[in-house]
Amino acid sequence: MENNCFNMTKLCPDADNTLGTVCIFGTGDFGRSLGLRLLQAGYSVVFGSRNPQNSSLLPKGAQVLSHVEAAQTSRVIFIAVHRENYEFLSAFSQELAGKVLVDISNNLMKNQYPESNAEYLAKLLPQANVVKAFNTVSAWALQSGSLDASRQVFVCGDNSESKQMVMDIARSLWLTALDQGSLLAAKELENYPLQLFPLWRLPIYIATGLTAAIFIYCVLTDIVYTFVTEGKDNSYRIVISIANRVCPIVSLIMLSLCYLPGVIAAILQLYNGTKYKRFPDWLDKWMLCRKQLGLVALAFAFLHVLYSLVIPIRYYVRQRQNIYIISQVKDNKTLTFDSTMSWRSDSFYSLGILGFSLYILLGITSLPSVSNMVNWREFRFVQSKLGHITLLLCTAHTLVYGWNKFLYVSRYKWYLPPAYVLSLIVPCIVLVLKLILITPCVDRVITRIRQGWERKSVHVPHDTSGQPLFL
Amino acid sequence: MENNCFNMTKLCPDADNTLGTVCIFGTGDFGRSLGLRLLQAGYSVVFGSRNPQNSSLLPKGAQVLSHVEAAQTSRVIFIAVHRENYEFLSAFSQELAGKVLVDISNNLMKNQYPESNAEYLAKLLPQANVVKAFNTVSAWALQSGSLDASRQVFVCGDNSESKQMVMDIARSLWLTALDQGSLLAAKELENYPLQLFPLWRLPIYIATGLTAAIFIYCVLTDIVYTFVTEGKDNSYRIVISIANRVCPIVSLIMLSLCYLPGVIAAILQLYNGTKYKRFPDWLDKWMLCRKQLGLVALAFAFLHVLYSLVIPIRYYVRQRQNIYIISQVKDNKTLTFDSTMSWRSDSFYSLGILGFSLYILLGITSLPSVSNMVNWREFRFVQSKLGHITLLLCTAHTLVYGWNKFLYVSRYKWYLPPAYVLSLIVPCIVLVLKLILITPCVDRVITRIRQGWERKSVHVPHDTSGQPLFL
Amino acid sequence: MENNCFNMTKLCPDADNTLGTVCIFGTGDFGRSLGLRLLQAGYSVVFGSRNPQNSSLLPKGAQVLSHVEAAQTSRVIFIAVHRENYEFLSAFSQELAGKVLVDISNNLMKNQYPESNAEYLAKLLPQANVVKAFNTVSAWALQSGSLDASRQVFVCGDNSESKQMVMDIARSLWLTALDQGSLLAAKELENYPLQLFPLWRLPIYIATGLTAAIFIYCVLTDIVYTFVTEGKDNSYRIVISIANRVCPIVSLIMLSLCYLPGVIAAILQLYNGTKYKRFPDWLDKWMLCRKQLGLVALAFAFLHVLYSLVIPIRYYVRQRQNIYIISQVKDNKTLTFDSTMSWRSDSFYSLGILGFSLYILLGITSLPSVSNMVNWREFRFVQSKLGHITLLLCTAHTLVYGWNKFLYVSRYKWYLPPAYVLSLIVPCIVLVLKLILITPCVDRVITRIRQGWERKSVHVPHDTSGQPLFL
Repeated sequence: MENNCFNMTKLCPDADNTLGTVCIFGTGDFGRSLGLRLLQAGYSVVFGSRNPQNSSLLPKGAQVLSHVEAAQTSRVIFIAVHRENYEFLSAFSQELAGKVLVDISNNLMKNQYPESNAEYLAKLLPQANVVKAFNTVSAWALQSGSLDASRQVFVCGDNSESKQMVMDIARSLWLTALDQGSLLAAKELENYPLQLFPLWRLPIYIATGLTAAIFIYCVLTDIVYTFVTEGKDNSYRIVISIANRVCPIVSLIMLSLCYLPGVIAAILQLYNGTKYKRFPDWLDKWMLCRKQLGLVALAFAFLHVLYSLVIPIRYYVRQRQNIYIISQVKDNKTLTFDSTMSWRSDSFYSLGILGFSLYILLGITSLPSVSNMVNWREFRFVQSKLGHITLLLCTAHTLVYGWNKFLYVSRYKWYLPPAYVLSLIVPCIVLVLKLILITPCVDRVITRIRQGWERKSVHVPHDTSGQPLFL
Repeated sequence: MENNCFNMTKLCPDADNTLGTVCIFGTGDFGRSLGLRLLQAGYSVVFGSRNPQNSSLLPKGAQVLSHVEAAQTSRVIFIAVHRENYEFLSAFSQELAGKVLVDISNNLMKNQYPESNAEYLAKLLPQANVVKAFNTVSAWALQSGSLDASRQVFVCGDNSESKQMVMDIARSLWLTALDQGSLLAAKELENYPLQLFPLWRLPIYIATGLTAAIFIYCVLTDIVYTFVTEGKDNSYRIVISIANRVCPIVSLIMLSLCYLPGVIAAILQLYNGTKYKRFPDWLDKWMLCRKQLGLVALAFAFLHVLYSLVIPIRYYVRQRQNIYIISQVKDNKTLTFDSTMSWRSDSFYSLGILGFSLYILLGITSLPSVSNMVNWREFRFVQSKLGHITLLLCTAHTLVYGWNKFLYVSRYKWYLPPAYVLSLIVPCIVLVLKLILITPCVDRVITRIRQGWERKSVHVPHDTSGQPLFL
Repeated sequence: MENNCFNMTKLCPDADNTLGTVCIFGTGDFGRSLGLRLLQAGYSVVFGSRNPQNSSLLPKGAQVLSHVEAAQTSRVIFIAVHRENYEFLSAFSQELAGKVLVDISNNLMKNQYPESNAEYLAKLLPQANVVKAFNTVSAWALQSGSLDASRQVFVCGDNSESKQMVMDIARSLWLTALDQGSLLAAKELENYPLQLFPLWRLPIYIATGLTAAIFIYCVLTDIVYTFVTEGKDNSYRIVISIANRVCPIVSLIMLSLCYLPGVIAAILQLYNGTKYKRFPDWLDKWMLCRKQLGLVALAFAFLHVLYSLVIPIRYYVRQRQNIYIISQVKDNKTLTFDSTMSWRSDSFYSLGILGFSLYILLGITSLPSVSNMVNWREFRFVQSKLGHITLLLCTAHTLVYGWNKFLYVSRYKWYLPPAYVLSLIVPCIVLVLKLILITPCVDRVITRIRQGWERKSVHVPHDTSGQPLFL
């Protein structure tokens, strides 16, 4: 699956000067990897170093000169030097005037300095054109030629010609260059490699919180209750039985949390009578992480499926089954076949299977390469129509599971309802609200609002272009 | 998994004029979202509006002027106005002469007007350079910065410099700009956001038809027959037992339909003695939706796997099992272990598992990002070689399932063969034909034909370049 | 999921000359497909042919002229002719001087000729600008407009203006053009379409070898041993029981082989006291195919899961179970429930399920489109942290499976330990070494080394930029 691994060393053994000369200040890890890659792509490379003679580890074919000499060989100079050493560059401000200085540095933590490294460099050398780039690419990736992680080079800077030169270099190294605007974006770019799944944080916190709460609830009603009332220790149930109760509940609640903000947004629009009023911030944030919420929910559903499928090979289940049969034989009882039970059990599984399959489909369409291939109408069809059907199927699956259990007082241990009842609250609210919203009379108003109509407005705006605003 | 969500509002708070000025006519939904995004990327934005004073909802930092004044500020003007209001633009034909007008409009249905909106605009304002673009991107996506659906901006227009300017703007907004040729392509571009999985339609129709037919067949032979002849109601079998009979049959037939057109094409080429004769249209269409056929087949296979794996936890199965054992005990029978049955049952499952695993592999290589990473030879290897092996394994799985059942008259209810027999017809035909086609003597002729040789031709063409034409 | 299939024939029925004229030498398969596509994109196309009158199969709208006449119509000429016929082009060296000749040829095997076709063409026509391109795209893909396989057009050549022209043409055909440097890269480009999963070869060889070895081992200790000592033939166990023993063992060993090179690299760095010493070649190669190793391991884990889940529906298992129960009843025994057994069995399955789920997660993040969306820190987090946790869970799964079996001599058939013991060796070594490496005292040294510190070095280099070098 990897075509990115041309044996690049062979590409241009003697074609060093085809693409021009690039200068690199600093002979550290990144400098050397970059130099090697540039050489392979057909550039000639000149390193600027404090001790030009001590350079045994530099890639073969590169020249090493003093900083001043090196600077004169090329218009583009990569500054592969730590920020702490930038000040020493100001000694060469004369030689660097007019040059394109590529700041590739990263920090150790977000917003480590009040101003970004690139802006600091630009202030030190006001006559040079500083471009921030390449900080999101790793030395290892450059060196090995196998770019497993991101191949995107984000570029920003105040001089567009300089940016163009850097982007051309990036592209000739098989990287994807993306213009990010002025040097003010440098702070964002320097923070970018330090971030760790920012959009996943909220969904994962929610999942963790829910899991903990429901786990404790189940342990309480299932294990502690039995221990207290009957003195029986069935703590072994934690490993799979309880886990397989927690997973589907968390999954169903999180799936419904995916579709709740859309419903709330529609109600707010109905209430405001316009779509031109901003949503509260929490709703905006919530809507932006719906995809992540859904994928975490899918992970829990996946665990639930696996936990359910191992049921018949568990020792606990097999043994209980054997004991049951043997006791039936001893008591000389005859088992009868209950057709209703069969309907119920099969519907329960069938709804679950169909729901899970649609769930997987939603997951696949969330893959960047797939969602990039569909147009907006198709994306909405999958994520909204199929999404709500998935929620409906999964809720029905849970309802059939519960059946009439919630009617029996014996199920209410310490007056607590069975856990599955709790899991149905949010999904049912979402589904009922959605059902109301898609009734023709309500739907007509929402559609008009989304097309720009305003209830209290005097004039109907004439210039909306019809794209849907919400899923 | 989302790095597209830089907090863009922070990017350029005071750098409005870094990238130049862009004008937007129309203060509707899309206009405003676009304006906000352009501001964030570092453009200065001027809105042209009928009532410039009434603009409380416009993004902060944007200027609002009358249309005439706004037009003078920028070379590029986005027309975020409905087609119905285009005519009023002709009043400004003087001011818009030479400007780049970006038509971003969409219609409510395909081919709504005889000519595309962009061509209509170009006719109204012949002195302006009309470029069709941005109509495939949604306002919501632009506004939120999270581009879940397509990031592709299709651009077409008759003036290539104008197109370049629009594509540059698209790229600086993190979008992928794709040149689509002259303004004649505008109709296609305007139809594009309205289409709903066009290539999936045929496979889904086929799947639906097959599912319905086989479902009815199974209900007839399984449930109605039992009810009529024995008076027993086992309608509960519909939910899983029948579903799990329909799914594998549909899946197997559809998988073989994937490989049938390739076989037909080869036979046609053999028959014609040349590859330079066009295939009939239906064959061309069929070949183009093979990928979709295969993926629908995979979905059915997936359902079949899940339905099969829940078998042991179904009430029906468990109860039947228990009743069986108890009756054995009562009758004082001794069960014996049949090694042949064990071979057969295990081979049956093993073939199914291997077939399904290869099936999944085929599905994964169909993902756009994966298929984009393989070269043509690798793609053919996976899709053709592994595909046929998958078909072979799945057919063998069904054959072992059937074993010798088809020999017993008791299985032929109302003289109808068991459903699985029907499912084997197409796959067996495909496999037998394929087997004939890959015998050395036939294969040699096909290979020569595909390399350009013609049976009745006088001269052998000298200038084919060896790429394979068919899978 | 396919938006690449605009009905391109409709695009530009009468706009042949919008984008300029392109000439194609050769009327073979590829020439014609390319011509059709160029026409659809809005170019006018002129074919150069030996017999211009015999051209019934060429796309409608294209002109056919003699080579000399055709060459005069366009600056860009596609040479859709076999290498063997290149020499005849030298007759037109006058007419082709200064033209951009696009060599699209492929060979039948790697390194078929001492010099690449493109370089050969450049030598024959020294006054023309030869550009190698389009050889990785297939005629079928161009013709059908459905680009399932790669859409990447690799371009190389010595004249950058010529390359730019070819890349522009590629982009207007919806292809992704990638500059690959000078014409020296042509050999690589010509070899590229002939390669068949080069990075997958080693992992697949390892997997095949391991599978064979462990299969033989299991057959020996399980089937041959029983046959020799007890005279019982249980060869039916091969199909699933043995397969389901081989798969998890191969999977676990291969997963640990993914993480072994990282550990070895760290130890080497500790030993050398520097990161500036090159690793041995075998280690470099090993590290480059870790992703493939992991994915093959995942495939085996997937098989293991499926094989395990069908256990309860196998005839062998059901029958043995029934026989067991009936014998229990006959002997009038009472089954007891062992809570420890339940803990063990449930933990065993639970560890497996969690391990497999993380495994799947690792697989998903290996998808090119997903790994392209994460930054380097996130990629490391998933692949290194989650990867090691996966290895830990899967090893624990195997340890719980084994429990205390390895203590019983009866398990050592012919003094051979049970197969699962063998599978634990490498994973345990990796985990123990990793555990030592992440103890604070060792970790501190490695971190310093990776930041550029050298044990024996006089001066600490000042200019590393902090990117991680190894996972």
